[in-house]
Amino acid sequence: MSRVGIVMGSDSDLPIMKKAADMLEKFGIEYDVTIISAHRMPDVFYEYAKNAESKYDVIIAGAGGAAHLPGMCAAITPIPVIGVPIKSAALSGVDSLYSIVQMPSGIPVATVAIDGAANAGILAAKIISVRESALREKIKAYADELKNGVMAKKEKIEKLGIEGYLNA
Amino acid sequence: MSRVGIVMGSDSDLPIMKKAADMLEKFGIEYDVTIISAHRMPDVFYEYAKNAESKYDVIIAGAGGAAHLPGMCAAITPIPVIGVPIKSAALSGVDSLYSIVQMPSGIPVATVAIDGAANAGILAAKIISVRESALREKIKAYADELKNGVMAKKEKIEKLGIEGYLNA
Amino acid sequence: MSRVGIVMGSDSDLPIMKKAADMLEKFGIEYDVTIISAHRMPDVFYEYAKNAESKYDVIIAGAGGAAHLPGMCAAITPIPVIGVPIKSAALSGVDSLYSIVQMPSGIPVATVAIDGAANAGILAAKIISVRESALREKIKAYADELKNGVMAKKEKIEKLGIEGYLNA
Amino acid sequence: MSRVGIVMGSDSDLPIMKKAADMLEKFGIEYDVTIISAHRMPDVFYEYAKNAESKYDVIIAGAGGAAHLPGMCAAITPIPVIGVPIKSAALSGVDSLYSIVQMPSGIPVATVAIDGAANAGILAAKIISVRESALREKIKAYADELKNGVMAKKEKIEKLGIEGYLNA
Amino acid sequence: MSRVGIVMGSDSDLPIMKKAADMLEKFGIEYDVTIISAHRMPDVFYEYAKNAESKYDVIIAGAGGAAHLPGMCAAITPIPVIGVPIKSAALSGVDSLYSIVQMPSGIPVATVAIDGAANAGILAAKIISVRESALREKIKAYADELKNGVMAKKEKIEKLGIEGYLNA
Amino acid sequence: MSRVGIVMGSDSDLPIMKKAADMLEKFGIEYDVTIISAHRMPDVFYEYAKNAESKYDVIIAGAGGAAHLPGMCAAITPIPVIGVPIKSAALSGVDSLYSIVQMPSGIPVATVAIDGAANAGILAAKIISVRESALREKIKAYADELKNGVMAKKEKIEKLGIEGYLNA
Amino acid sequence: MSRVGIVMGSDSDLPIMKKAADMLEKFGIEYDVTIISAHRMPDVFYEYAKNAESKYDVIIAGAGGAAHLPGMCAAITPIPVIGVPIKSAALSGVDSLYSIVQMPSGIPVATVAIDGAANAGILAAKIISVRESALREKIKAYADELKNGVMAKKEKIEKLGIEGYLNA
Amino acid sequence: MSRVGIVMGSDSDLPIMKKAADMLEKFGIEYDVTIISAHRMPDVFYEYAKNAESKYDVIIAGAGGAAHLPGMCAAITPIPVIGVPIKSAALSGVDSLYSIVQMPSGIPVATVAIDGAANAGILAAKIISVRESALREKIKAYADELKNGVMAKKEKIEKLGIEGYLNA
Repeated sequence: MSRVGIVMGSDSDLPIMKKAADMLEKFGIEYDVTIISAHRMPDVFYEYAKNAESKYDVIIAGAGGAAHLPGMCAAITPIPVIGVPIKSAALSGVDSLYSIVQMPSGIPVATVAIDGAANAGILAAKIISVRESALREKIKAYADELKNGVMAKKEKIEKLGIEGYLNA
Repeated sequence: MSRVGIVMGSDSDLPIMKKAADMLEKFGIEYDVTIISAHRMPDVFYEYAKNAESKYDVIIAGAGGAAHLPGMCAAITPIPVIGVPIKSAALSGVDSLYSIVQMPSGIPVATVAIDGAANAGILAAKIISVRESALREKIKAYADELKNGVMAKKEKIEKLGIEGYLNA
Repeated sequence: MSRVGIVMGSDSDLPIMKKAADMLEKFGIEYDVTIISAHRMPDVFYEYAKNAESKYDVIIAGAGGAAHLPGMCAAITPIPVIGVPIKSAALSGVDSLYSIVQMPSGIPVATVAIDGAANAGILAAKIISVRESALREKIKAYADELKNGVMAKKEKIEKLGIEGYLNA
Repeated sequence: MSRVGIVMGSDSDLPIMKKAADMLEKFGIEYDVTIISAHRMPDVFYEYAKNAESKYDVIIAGAGGAAHLPGMCAAITPIPVIGVPIKSAALSGVDSLYSIVQMPSGIPVATVAIDGAANAGILAAKIISVRESALREKIKAYADELKNGVMAKKEKIEKLGIEGYLNA
Repeated sequence: MSRVGIVMGSDSDLPIMKKAADMLEKFGIEYDVTIISAHRMPDVFYEYAKNAESKYDVIIAGAGGAAHLPGMCAAITPIPVIGVPIKSAALSGVDSLYSIVQMPSGIPVATVAIDGAANAGILAAKIISVRESALREKIKAYADELKNGVMAKKEKIEKLGIEGYLNA
Repeated sequence: MSRVGIVMGSDSDLPIMKKAADMLEKFGIEYDVTIISAHRMPDVFYEYAKNAESKYDVIIAGAGGAAHLPGMCAAITPIPVIGVPIKSAALSGVDSLYSIVQMPSGIPVATVAIDGAANAGILAAKIISVRESALREKIKAYADELKNGVMAKKEKIEKLGIEGYLNA
Repeated sequence: MSRVGIVMGSDSDLPIMKKAADMLEKFGIEYDVTIISAHRMPDVFYEYAKNAESKYDVIIAGAGGAAHLPGMCAAITPIPVIGVPIKSAALSGVDSLYSIVQMPSGIPVATVAIDGAANAGILAAKIISVRESALREKIKAYADELKNGVMAKKEKIEKLGIEGYLNA
Repeated sequence: MSRVGIVMGSDSDLPIMKKAADMLEKFGIEYDVTIISAHRMPDVFYEYAKNAESKYDVIIAGAGGAAHLPGMCAAITPIPVIGVPIKSAALSGVDSLYSIVQMPSGIPVATVAIDGAANAGILAAKIISVRESALREKIKAYADELKNGVMAKKEKIEKLGIEGYLNA
């Protein structure tokens, strides 16, 4: 049984982080979601990260501003950690991105785009698919689905033109 | 047999990307390394990316400037792609980082720090360790090694003080 | 017969990219417009770019975030490619701009301003006017039109003053 | 006879701008090169830009800092203007890039990368190739040359490995 | 008779640039205001800048994006030019600021804050006060007025406290 | 008796700076709040800063844009000064942050996050707690309170799941 | 007995962090210095931070890149934490600064300038001086020393002029 | 008699600020130069700024990092203040620029480019020329000199070509 742990530091991150969960559900990957602040409850956080290996294949951690959660997860657990920089109020997530991606040698965080939680879910699936070939097929099917979605738009605009498309 | 494909767009990236290979060797993970430009040989690049699934568990792709190589890999292959933004001449790798990490929904690239190729190697090992428990143990041993390295410095400075440490 | 291919990766770019089409219509230049994602349908994209030379004089490609579409077009086709960086949600198009303009040596993209699709249309016209002198005259006439537009404002404010102008 | 005008504001830009000239020579495109400051000799500059249409198909203009030269060229002449942002002392060319690429609607400058003068030369060739099919063939041959250059590196590293490559 | 020329490239800059005019009126300094685009009507612009010395003591020029107007004014006229970077849609005026302030040696533009048109008016007054001592007294009186305005707020908050102040 | 001086340059900063006062009230620390502009009333400001040592343990100074208030306080008084960069209209507080944090050697300002006035209040409490152990206990109690707040959210989401949490 | 804990994540930070120690020695404040990586030895780091309250009045923590050390210290200990952003290889310390200063509400880090370790030492002294009036006098004496240093330069340049000063 | 006060906060700024003095000497404008730190000697600084009106027409103030000197001058004296942002170690002068140019309404600083001290000298001359017509003529003569300098380079490169120019 594959499992992903989704963790974020604040419930204000939840509407974005939900997209990771939605993607995991799409791929039929079981996951836990929780809210743990590395800053406000460091002890609870340490326990969470220390126990992660026995429960999860991958952690998806979202954080904004001085976003230490993903990097501290990666410092404690040996499993892969995916970091989601959350768009912040003043600096639009540049602070979140730098705090997550610029990790020192030895402690990688697999960073996705600012607010890119859906991609975090897909990346978790890709990682687990290294072990599970059935999941690999689902990933390919999803890629086809994405392709078909744009293909339909392609056909629509080539048929209707810009005005027709925008007014349809 | 686990395999990682290391690819970069230019041999000027090689001194940085070598650190990914060094890390894979440390973990006993076989890898191929090649130089393929998505811009200068798009056909060769497409073939490489299309065939990656049959050869590799993970791709590590390094690129600088308008760094399209990692993202285009991720667009073509279903396996996880790790992107290494290479420090660039004018913009110090901010361009490389944005070009790699800010991928649209559906096509994640697991991005590491600017010039963070060593971490790309470790992340590849962490990803493959989802399947291989023996590798997981090596990753933990490496974490201990890192810890011991700093531990020795900790003891040294606590014993010698700053002046002593710097002059030792 | 002159032709321009307008391509974008998502229909969310359409309201901006429409301005390129409007400008081409103003100059009487025929164009096709389509929606093709280099990331979600790389095969379709490759075919598009490979066939571009036989159909178009110029490509106008718009993309946001990790904006690979213009650069990958330029990697595949020998015709001039104009890139339009689309303003993005978190980074306001700085990511789009860097991903498009910072191309490596050998593969230029003629980059215009963030959301500068109208200028992409004018630039396409200027490029085609290298061959067609009648189009050059239309471009000069459009420059006169622009001048006259500001000239009218100049006269209006010199006559009415700031308050009068703002209240007119 | 095709002609390109290369213009820069200072002879400190010459080592970079030379790359545009080198590329034009490679393609057999005749060009003039001159040093004209839009700021220090605005009258001479105006005459240059006003006469450009009768002499050139394309202008390549390089400038650094508050880089007004390319945009002011584009304001005066109807022919396509390619802008080369020169890396600057304090801001590494971000100032040059913004001053060149962020042109208002109506006055496009085809902007290339910071210090991307070689690409400016190639882009000029691509633009002129809209009229001259023989030049189009040279551009394709150059693309093959670029591809073969990387192909040789690809074969070399696949044969020698990283250590062998770096020591060769 | 002291005169200031206020010039901007677009009437979209007018609500901001009005603040410069308001400040000049406050100081009793006569001014002209006009809308001239350096890009769309370079000939008219050249005439304006060439004639400025005979009409004005100072020019206040506002522009956004690739903001060439202030710098080109300063290139043509020997009188002091004050530049107002207008906040731009994508880059919030960082482009405007760099395009105005980063002038090459020989051609200064006295740059104020992004959207800082009121300060441009005050700076023009300070410049003219080098010649006119009566104006210097008005500037000091205005400084007192500013001081008194904050002094009243100081007394109010020290009396009412934060809640009282905010609810007053 | 412990005292903190809260000072800001404009009443537009008051809604943000109120958060510092709220935090001091929570800890039972007496404070004064005032509005003094270093730019508009430099003499009053000097007096304020010179007298601070006799009245306060700590100053909390908030300012936006070219935010000189915190640094100039720190230049005049020997007591610790905490700086709060206020989010600004064009540059989102990056200007405020740089103006406050990048102080020269000799004159430190203890800088908190953009709009981080609540943290300024907590930091003031932490500083005073170096002298007052009862306050230290209140700070620990507040940390527990913060922890319990997130703990409740943790339990809620683990019980209700994302949908349940968002709809609760 | 006042004590400061100086901690950094890597001995590469030591030449900068030494300046904090030098300043503490100047003020006669005892300190410990150690090297502990929050990422490579999280358990040791936790113990360090948990025990800090019983040993120190203030912590000075220096870190570069995704600089989590200062913020994680502040999350665990109730004593004041001063953060020193170390200049980083690619991003010049902007990443370090954002990772340290942009802390969430509840967990302040007193941030100083990039590489501003000397100011961290002075700030620690100012904080401890809230309790120790003798230290306050030393701080004032140091301010006089700084003043006298510049005063000597002032007199020198007013006497010798620029050329004389530079050649002296 | 016209006079300019040149002031800087540190003698490390002197090699840059010397260029302002050189330019004033070129125009025959008498000036004083001094080193005064607004942070290290605020009382001396206040006296300097308060007395400036009786001694100078214009102040040129250079500063780096959290560059408060120019803005605080402008807050105290009614005469025009020109600010020179000095390139800083970590942030290349972006911090200096923002600290100087982003002044609040009421207190303008006439900001020039990063390290643009020569332009500060020229701008001071332009400001004083509002009163002194003989100086205006010198400014025009200097503009001619600048023009002739580039003119000679223009002729040289048109005669010798790039290679010849670079090898001459």
